[in-house]
Amino acid sequence: MSFISAILLLGGKGSRFDLTTPKQFFLLKEKPLFLYPLQTLVESNLFQEIILVIPEGSLSFVENWVKPYLDKLKLIQGGNTRQASSYQGILACHPLSEYVVIHDAARAFVSHRILQENVENVQKYKAVNTAIPSTSTIVYTKPCKTFLESIPLREKCFEGQTPQSFSYSIIKKAHEEALINNIEGASDDCRLVLPSHPIKIILGEEKNFKITTKKDIHLASIFLE
Amino acid sequence: MSFISAILLLGGKGSRFDLTTPKQFFLLKEKPLFLYPLQTLVESNLFQEIILVIPEGSLSFVENWVKPYLDKLKLIQGGNTRQASSYQGILACHPLSEYVVIHDAARAFVSHRILQENVENVQKYKAVNTAIPSTSTIVYTKPCKTFLESIPLREKCFEGQTPQSFSYSIIKKAHEEALINNIEGASDDCRLVLPSHPIKIILGEEKNFKITTKKDIHLASIFLE
Repeated sequence: MSFISAILLLGGKGSRFDLTTPKQFFLLKEKPLFLYPLQTLVESNLFQEIILVIPEGSLSFVENWVKPYLDKLKLIQGGNTRQASSYQGILACHPLSEYVVIHDAARAFVSHRILQENVENVQKYKAVNTAIPSTSTIVYTKPCKTFLESIPLREKCFEGQTPQSFSYSIIKKAHEEALINNIEGASDDCRLVLPSHPIKIILGEEKNFKITTKKDIHLASIFLE
Repeated sequence: MSFISAILLLGGKGSRFDLTTPKQFFLLKEKPLFLYPLQTLVESNLFQEIILVIPEGSLSFVENWVKPYLDKLKLIQGGNTRQASSYQGILACHPLSEYVVIHDAARAFVSHRILQENVENVQKYKAVNTAIPSTSTIVYTKPCKTFLESIPLREKCFEGQTPQSFSYSIIKKAHEEALINNIEGASDDCRLVLPSHPIKIILGEEKNFKITTKKDIHLASIFLE
């Protein structure tokens, strides 16, 4: 059996959220948001370890909530960007780790099916992105952002979700090369890997949306009804 | 003063909606959805005429709801696709029409500000699209749809909304040429115009989202609270 690590990113300052609590710590039905995907990860029994990457200053808050799972978790502090936090998670993996499944905690309702398909496909394809066909018409703007440049074919446009899963050596090397080339602030890991390795797509779910606005919190409540 | 026509598209069979009522006729706070944007159009006083393009079989239902506004409206039957319905609306415009502002009724909460900026900018730029920066990471897939092809720069990705507004002669010609070239099923009018004319972007709004799923109806209720 392969050694597979899950990395759950609790980073993100929630600046778009317009609430004092960072979104991943917002209480929904008396549970902080990040606990929903964490429980799904734990209960899936797919991972040999689960690494929580926590923003500065929130360690004790998180520790308090994850007490029942502490024997399965490693808690570490993240960096200033998503890319830095993801890299910290990768560096914290067990020396035997062969594959990593990286998930944003703001996607609270990731399903067991999505996790399972990530785990199965990463062992076959070495790099996997979860994505769904875009329901919007995407338009591409000129650099000025005030005129259209092109309208890509709708059927080719997908919305990237997480998890994104990789062979450990591939994702570690991609992050190292990004640092050497001064690439910072990548909003997802696939962007770093794509230049060097093909990436398989796993079908995501509408329910696996990212909770980033007050509107999304309303939606999340609806999903929990 | 220019002669400006508004075209409100009530088309769409609502196949994604999973309800027996087509989405644009769904009652929200005892009013069918299409009546929200129609009232905004009427009350804006920006348009010399408003053309409602109605799916087959729904004419009497619509007539019943729009009685208070009938003197300002022209009701016509749409085609089998969005492109065909849009073209029917264009053909139904008054002979003096100089500009058309085309809006999807499923975007129930279009604002006066968006309408006004469309009207102002179409007179200057001749072709206008309403759009907002994409909050998702967009990925392009290979034709097989199972592998990633590229990840466009996030800051260049916008989500197209409506209204889309055009000089009458430009949009009419674009539709005629599409027919000559056997282009059918265009999901928006800008796609037909872009090859021949630059398109200015007007900033849309999150609230101007397209109501296409049950989840969206929930959201719409939240916006009306």
